[in-house]
Amino acid sequence: MKSTGRCRAHTNIALIKYWGKRNEELFLPMNSSLSLTLDAFFTDTEVVLDDNLTSDEFYLDDTKQGVEETQKITEFLNLFRNLAKIETKACVKSYNHVPTAAGLASSASAFSALAGAMNQAIGLNLDLKTLSTFARQGSGSATRSVYGGFVEWFMGNDDETTSSHAIPVDDASWDIGMIVIAVNTGRKKLSSRVGMKQTIKTSPFYSSWVETATSDLTKMKEAIKKQDFIQLGEITESNGMKMHATMLGAFPPISYWEPDSVKAIQKVKEIRETGIPCYVTMDAGPNVKVLCKQSDMLKIEQLLLEEFKEEQIIPSKIGEGIRLLNRSEWNY
Amino acid sequence: MKSTGRCRAHTNIALIKYWGKRNEELFLPMNSSLSLTLDAFFTDTEVVLDDNLTSDEFYLDDTKQGVEETQKITEFLNLFRNLAKIETKACVKSYNHVPTAAGLASSASAFSALAGAMNQAIGLNLDLKTLSTFARQGSGSATRSVYGGFVEWFMGNDDETTSSHAIPVDDASWDIGMIVIAVNTGRKKLSSRVGMKQTIKTSPFYSSWVETATSDLTKMKEAIKKQDFIQLGEITESNGMKMHATMLGAFPPISYWEPDSVKAIQKVKEIRETGIPCYVTMDAGPNVKVLCKQSDMLKIEQLLLEEFKEEQIIPSKIGEGIRLLNRSEWNY
Repeated sequence: MKSTGRCRAHTNIALIKYWGKRNEELFLPMNSSLSLTLDAFFTDTEVVLDDNLTSDEFYLDDTKQGVEETQKITEFLNLFRNLAKIETKACVKSYNHVPTAAGLASSASAFSALAGAMNQAIGLNLDLKTLSTFARQGSGSATRSVYGGFVEWFMGNDDETTSSHAIPVDDASWDIGMIVIAVNTGRKKLSSRVGMKQTIKTSPFYSSWVETATSDLTKMKEAIKKQDFIQLGEITESNGMKMHATMLGAFPPISYWEPDSVKAIQKVKEIRETGIPCYVTMDAGPNVKVLCKQSDMLKIEQLLLEEFKEEQIIPSKIGEGIRLLNRSEWNY
Repeated sequence: MKSTGRCRAHTNIALIKYWGKRNEELFLPMNSSLSLTLDAFFTDTEVVLDDNLTSDEFYLDDTKQGVEETQKITEFLNLFRNLAKIETKACVKSYNHVPTAAGLASSASAFSALAGAMNQAIGLNLDLKTLSTFARQGSGSATRSVYGGFVEWFMGNDDETTSSHAIPVDDASWDIGMIVIAVNTGRKKLSSRVGMKQTIKTSPFYSSWVETATSDLTKMKEAIKKQDFIQLGEITESNGMKMHATMLGAFPPISYWEPDSVKAIQKVKEIRETGIPCYVTMDAGPNVKVLCKQSDMLKIEQLLLEEFKEEQIIPSKIGEGIRLLNRSEWNY
């Protein structure tokens, strides 16, 4: 037996953040979150199930990966193999399409693409909702990359893995875009996994964070329904800052900010004060993402050039959900 | 009648922060706080009560101040005049001794010195505890500048003005010092008064802030008792960050940080990682204060010079409480 699956998934940026798990093993989150899928950043992945292989192999951008990385892939593929009751080994090839400077080589697009490719290779024909619960178990944020546009990751119930899945909210085909300001592309010192655990354990703000994120999500879905960009932006910026505030409350304090992160936040505020609506959000790293109208992107990029280099400013349209790739589209 | 009082008061830096009033008019705080009085920054103030004056006059660094500034002084002096049942007007002369670059022209030393000078001029002979309740009504943090070393500002009960006063905790004559890193000396865009109100009204973290500050205070007093510098420093850094986190949780988010604030925080962390214990705290502005051992100050200053200019780095020993000045000490 030798069967192949190929899939593309885009990364996503959370507007209502996910920061902390209620179940570590199953990647079940403390709160529901909501993201925007981005067109400019994606991963293409091929899975070849092959009876001749004696162990899984994993290539990232044509470089064979070591035992630890491959083990993580094996565990992920086992979710599918266990369901299909097969033990066939796989050769996985992934290509990240992320401008080098962005520092956004995200596990979100990686595990979402891997789920899509494996689903095709193994012939399970799982639906997108189920695929999102699988993607989740590779990396929490991968749950949301299964769909395009605005996507909710519903937190689900108790320890039920099937209940925590992505839901498409809106295709974001109105006037929306995002600009990534790449502040630092080095590896972060504190992983999200460790940062989350430390925050839950020590931040006095954690329970309020979960409450406020939940009410922000409700308000944001209303804003999306009304296509109210200002409200969308204000909730986005506020929610991101509250996540960083919650971390800063941990002991010892956690901060992913760098001097240029503050410079970017200040610049965006300055641009907003000139009358162009734009709002920042940040994840577990120093880079700053700017939510704006697509029709304002060129103007905003020009203004950002006053403070940052051209290669640090990466605009993106809104991305689509996972998509299987034909053999003819596989140009690697 | 013509009678004179002259007093010096030092500024103080809170290690357990004060951020928010339960009674705006009386400057009654939401939580008790604890500070360190600094030797390097002080205000000298002279009050001359003079029956020949028809209105109060106020000179700051030899410059006559306008109606608004003088009105604030008048209201403050009325606290004393009402008690003494006199209406004599005053001429107030204040001199701020704050290195220009420090941007620390603090109302804490100003209202504490004014309280001490007026007390002498009017002959009320109020004790320090009572003076601290008067100073509080000029500026909350002035409450603590009445004493030297480590000082607690006890929050007090309900709306009782006499119950909210300073308490000397420890003269800090062990190995303690502080270095101010002057990041930006311009006027801040958002006053503490407005920032506090906005935080109380909109930050979901506010009630947890009050709780955590209260328990931090208890732990800090234990650390001071044991002269445990590491514990003192860890609580200081954590408490300051939690105050800034609480602001960041406001809507819209409040941040006083500038790019160089983050640079200073990172540098102090780097210095600490080399084995020299030092910890940051920040107030409602971009400047960064470094709590350290006095015996390490020269070493730390040298290391800070790698990132900041000499005039931005201002070391201070621990300061004393308010002190009346003889005529011979009044060299203005």
